[in-house]
Amino acid sequence: MSTTTRETTITADPAAPTVVITREFDAPRENVFRAHVDPDLVKRWLGPRDLTMEIDTYDARTGGSYRYTHRDSDGEYTFFGSFHEVRPSERIVQTFTYEGFPDSVTLETMTLTDLGGGRTRLEGLSLFESIEARDGMIASGMEIGVNEGYEKLDELLAE
Amino acid sequence: MSTTTRETTITADPAAPTVVITREFDAPRENVFRAHVDPDLVKRWLGPRDLTMEIDTYDARTGGSYRYTHRDSDGEYTFFGSFHEVRPSERIVQTFTYEGFPDSVTLETMTLTDLGGGRTRLEGLSLFESIEARDGMIASGMEIGVNEGYEKLDELLAE
Repeated sequence: MSTTTRETTITADPAAPTVVITREFDAPRENVFRAHVDPDLVKRWLGPRDLTMEIDTYDARTGGSYRYTHRDSDGEYTFFGSFHEVRPSERIVQTFTYEGFPDSVTLETMTLTDLGGGRTRLEGLSLFESIEARDGMIASGMEIGVNEGYEKLDELLAE
Repeated sequence: MSTTTRETTITADPAAPTVVITREFDAPRENVFRAHVDPDLVKRWLGPRDLTMEIDTYDARTGGSYRYTHRDSDGEYTFFGSFHEVRPSERIVQTFTYEGFPDSVTLETMTLTDLGGGRTRLEGLSLFESIEARDGMIASGMEIGVNEGYEKLDELLAE
């Protein structure tokens, strides 16, 4: 299987506090889904390349929760949230917070679409409480983490 | 203690998919908080007057979840969500979905402020995925449920 590097599209709506991410993967929908709910797989791809990920909790089912820490040479960054709904192979709705700035919470909805031929389109919608909070997340380097994470996910799915 | 009926202010921002609710209560912050996390108290005030509430789960702590059913003469309505963060006496962040329309999820942040003299101000921020979804919730009669619920909460807090 070839591992074409696909483009990640990140769109910030000028009129609403959202970010929409779209990305295609050369893998069946079930595999892309499993890489989002199995903590042993998640820790292999989520986030930028220069970080390690330690998972405290990752209970990816409706009503479950998660907490993990990313570490690099500059320090550590802990994130936590809840899985509002996990609909197998189809949709995950979860909350997301950086523990260092706990008043800022985003609601993230990931939808997977089967494109046929073993290919899958992922759409991620992030909802922020204000346009300022959304612009702050983009300015913090979100794009690098998303791009590098999905490149690692390509590699994992190709195994 | 008098049970002044206080005005509930419900504000829909024309430019963002939010609803902001503010309400004051003649009760200490700890009591208003407890009425939001103890399921035996919650079922006595949440929602319009003509409904009964049956709680399936109500685990109001960070990472917990809830599910309950409101019933009236017309039928039953089940709601579910997660408690993203429960910060005692101060703040609750939770997701919210009507099970009959599961793709529409809101993120709700309640903040309690101690006004002194045994009085408390509640601010509720609801974040919807679009202005259309927000306007649909308002059109569904949300205001009646909020107002009647808070009147019942006044009565409970005065006991």
